[in-house]
Amino acid sequence: MSKSSNVQQIQSANDLYAKSFGEKLSKLPIPPARKLAILTCMDARIHASKLFGFEEGDAHIIRNAGGRASDDAIRSLVISYKLLGTREFFVVHHTNCGMVLFDNKIMTDLLSKSLEQAVVDENGWRDVGRGPGSPEGAKVDWLTFTDDRQAVIDDVEKIRNHPLVPKSIPIYGYLYDVRTGKLEEIAEATAVGAAS
Amino acid sequence: MSKSSNVQQIQSANDLYAKSFGEKLSKLPIPPARKLAILTCMDARIHASKLFGFEEGDAHIIRNAGGRASDDAIRSLVISYKLLGTREFFVVHHTNCGMVLFDNKIMTDLLSKSLEQAVVDENGWRDVGRGPGSPEGAKVDWLTFTDDRQAVIDDVEKIRNHPLVPKSIPIYGYLYDVRTGKLEEIAEATAVGAAS
Repeated sequence: MSKSSNVQQIQSANDLYAKSFGEKLSKLPIPPARKLAILTCMDARIHASKLFGFEEGDAHIIRNAGGRASDDAIRSLVISYKLLGTREFFVVHHTNCGMVLFDNKIMTDLLSKSLEQAVVDENGWRDVGRGPGSPEGAKVDWLTFTDDRQAVIDDVEKIRNHPLVPKSIPIYGYLYDVRTGKLEEIAEATAVGAAS
Repeated sequence: MSKSSNVQQIQSANDLYAKSFGEKLSKLPIPPARKLAILTCMDARIHASKLFGFEEGDAHIIRNAGGRASDDAIRSLVISYKLLGTREFFVVHHTNCGMVLFDNKIMTDLLSKSLEQAVVDENGWRDVGRGPGSPEGAKVDWLTFTDDRQAVIDDVEKIRNHPLVPKSIPIYGYLYDVRTGKLEEIAEATAVGAAS
């Protein structure tokens, strides 16, 4: 079949990047040079390299829906710290996050009717797609939240209190404002073990 | 306490970014403009915007240790598709991944002795840190792999066969060569439902 426009654009972008790929980049080691890991949201408006000033080789970047401290995010953070030399964790959520637009019941109901696209308006979510639904959505905790600041505090505390995370690692919590481009510090759970 | 150099550098980078943050960026909507989601590794050498050519607002980016199709990555992909309008998934692993350097038994053993940093040499992994260990590592599937190409195929197939992922969405699998900067297509699971 013919390639999608996204495939073609990604291949074109990668061709350009590979042409400029110098010896320095080709020799970067696995451990991040700046010894830090960031957990943030998959949101398309978060441009990690511009927002945080990262170049190739600087930092581990973990992203999921909401930037939540899921079991899988903590799996990644523990690998980052234990095996790959990072020494600081940053949790960065953002304003206007899609995760405040629904909850477990809404998602479960939508998926039970159809796996295809839903749309939202002033009357709430509704399905526009056809095709089969699935009851499996009820088995998932979708990790939504209602208060973006509290979600940062909750996730910093969850990581701080996890049995596989050493008490010695500093954990910083930030909220990124997608309307201004500014980071705001929300929480800090330092080596003393308390979030503030 | 005084801020770490990473905190200071991130704040400086963010100050610069926020100063150049124009009206166009401030009005970007939640759904990604290019209607795609990428699942890739947290590895510091993956610079998503350069590698794929993404600007702010273009694409959902999901990252974890290994770029694996974990339950949490699939949670994020389903939210991306069902609620936020993406229409193509890309799974991108890379060469020289840290996930081939250990397995569940090695990680469990290391964590049971100490949560602090381990180092690897020709004799394998060993702990250099002190402090308490934890048996909790045995409860985690660390999602390591031994063959980077097969891991791409496995993850594309896992997403393709997940009950909450519609059969209609194209899923592309790539391997990124960290020595050359080049993407290589490894697998494609199209709407017909078969990985190739």
